[in-house]
Amino acid sequence: MKIKSEFEIELLTKIFIGWGFDSQKARIVADVLNYADLRGIYSHGIQRLTMYEKKLNAGYIDREAKIQVVKQVPNCIVVDAQQAMGQLASTEVMDRLIRVARKNGIAFATVRNSNHFGAAGYYAEMASQAKMIGFAATSTNPLVVPPRAKNPFLGSNPFAAAFPLKKNDFVFDGATSTVSLGRIEVLEKLNEQIPGEWAIDGKGELEKNPANVLSGLTQEKRTGGVLPIGGIKEANSNYKGFAISLLIEIMTAIFSQGSIAADLGNGKHDISHFFMVIDPTLFISLKQFKIQLTDMLTRIQKLETVDGKKVTLPGEKEQIALRRNIKAGIEIDDKTLQQVKRICSDLKIDF
Amino acid sequence: MKIKSEFEIELLTKIFIGWGFDSQKARIVADVLNYADLRGIYSHGIQRLTMYEKKLNAGYIDREAKIQVVKQVPNCIVVDAQQAMGQLASTEVMDRLIRVARKNGIAFATVRNSNHFGAAGYYAEMASQAKMIGFAATSTNPLVVPPRAKNPFLGSNPFAAAFPLKKNDFVFDGATSTVSLGRIEVLEKLNEQIPGEWAIDGKGELEKNPANVLSGLTQEKRTGGVLPIGGIKEANSNYKGFAISLLIEIMTAIFSQGSIAADLGNGKHDISHFFMVIDPTLFISLKQFKIQLTDMLTRIQKLETVDGKKVTLPGEKEQIALRRNIKAGIEIDDKTLQQVKRICSDLKIDF
Repeated sequence: MKIKSEFEIELLTKIFIGWGFDSQKARIVADVLNYADLRGIYSHGIQRLTMYEKKLNAGYIDREAKIQVVKQVPNCIVVDAQQAMGQLASTEVMDRLIRVARKNGIAFATVRNSNHFGAAGYYAEMASQAKMIGFAATSTNPLVVPPRAKNPFLGSNPFAAAFPLKKNDFVFDGATSTVSLGRIEVLEKLNEQIPGEWAIDGKGELEKNPANVLSGLTQEKRTGGVLPIGGIKEANSNYKGFAISLLIEIMTAIFSQGSIAADLGNGKHDISHFFMVIDPTLFISLKQFKIQLTDMLTRIQKLETVDGKKVTLPGEKEQIALRRNIKAGIEIDDKTLQQVKRICSDLKIDF
Repeated sequence: MKIKSEFEIELLTKIFIGWGFDSQKARIVADVLNYADLRGIYSHGIQRLTMYEKKLNAGYIDREAKIQVVKQVPNCIVVDAQQAMGQLASTEVMDRLIRVARKNGIAFATVRNSNHFGAAGYYAEMASQAKMIGFAATSTNPLVVPPRAKNPFLGSNPFAAAFPLKKNDFVFDGATSTVSLGRIEVLEKLNEQIPGEWAIDGKGELEKNPANVLSGLTQEKRTGGVLPIGGIKEANSNYKGFAISLLIEIMTAIFSQGSIAADLGNGKHDISHFFMVIDPTLFISLKQFKIQLTDMLTRIQKLETVDGKKVTLPGEKEQIALRRNIKAGIEIDDKTLQQVKRICSDLKIDF
């Protein structure tokens, strides 16, 4: 089934109001989820409702939390999100950072005691929409297996970077593992095998069955898991993918003094974020930056390829999905549709 | 042949003095090259002498250049290195950033018109040795082929991040391609095949012969090249490795308004760098940071593995080489030895 973007925002807003959020907060969360769905990042859109529902019911999320600025110096704020919805803490922090960076050129924040914040690109793009460079990263539950290890330790540790451009901002947003857990969940729903070196079983062997990966990653089991970028072989430089994941975990969980991924899920639920905003006019005029970046990206797209098609740029698939989904609406799979209907029925919302 | 570390520093200092640098500058360059050799990063040590010799003879490097601070605001300096040796520009810029970060908490620099700076880890570790967090990145000549493309466009775009620890600082230093060009050069010297998905030929097919990769990357040819992290297949998320390389190129070449990799080597020789220093005490006590990071790294090392051996941490191989090479001396391969002897003979230096 397809639903119009505006309809999805309204529906999600009503649901979060039904779950006890005030209307302004509900609208922000709805907007972040809709951002992902519009861009084809379905794993981080409306299909995550049941996850948020569970966390709300379990008491991990405080609907009325006011984020607390623990420390503030000219270019850095240390935030305790007080178990707020990740989307609410993150948008508030980014708003502050954009204001500070406009004045001081650069600003960053560590955020502890937060929750799942949805798509990282939303926050990085808040900065690029304000003509700034934005960077957003988050810790997650443990998923990623270091090279030669058998069990998950690191989070999928996604990060996003966004740069202002003339038409569409240049946004990279991705887990620092080969894939996010959402990609594996999608394959399981479709009953398809894993096409690449994405995951291993508890013996360290490549695992191609998505259902096995997911069942291994339950809190009780935690065996096997998702591979770092570079896959299963040292010869393919998986130690570099591992290092990049580790850096994101240091910048989120350790900078903020939160729990590391390995300790999350079992009793601890404090997700950590890192955000940074830089005013590019410190070192280049905005016009010059846009010209040079656009020129480089255009030249990359035009490189000769093995199949004669254009090189795909980071964020390009999301831009294509955005244009399509704004017009044609957002596709919701049957399983998600049933879940949303059940939630609406529980909350007495017409759908 | 093995040479003692102190001897290498003296020898390199003499050579750079012989090439027209004043003794203080020669000593800094020697120290940066020795840093790499001591840590087993032989590709960036004494074996690079002939490359620097060529660049000096070609006039790409100005021995007496004084770096120019084009713009300075409290947390950012824009530097024109005036064609200085990369090592000289970079150490001077990092010294400044460390001073600024100590006062303001965070400082970063863009550097244009520089040259090859050696191992990125040296500069990041200058910060961590000063109890700061350091980040260093550089542009390079074109080597890396975007997914599905046939020819090199991006640089190998290495970056390093360093964090202060109690004993040995935690340092990651690596090209954002599967491997650096140096790794391929080493295999060629050893007459060995490439063991992983490191490179393609001009048709986009996997290339296992290091000599073919190197001959394809000459300025005249520039066909085929090194793959991004993730290798040749989209199914193994090579688009993420590509995105990470691209981000480093934006932060170096475009932030500094320098030439992008694709334009380097053929007429243009302006290498660009990016450096950042953050005072961790803005958001965490140094003691707490060291405890939490050490605890995480120790737990990773102890994870159960497929072969019962410890998980290898980023920077660990370099630490092992450092301990070994300080005691046993630095191994110089025969080809490099002949080159160094010839240089010494030209400069009338005893060796």
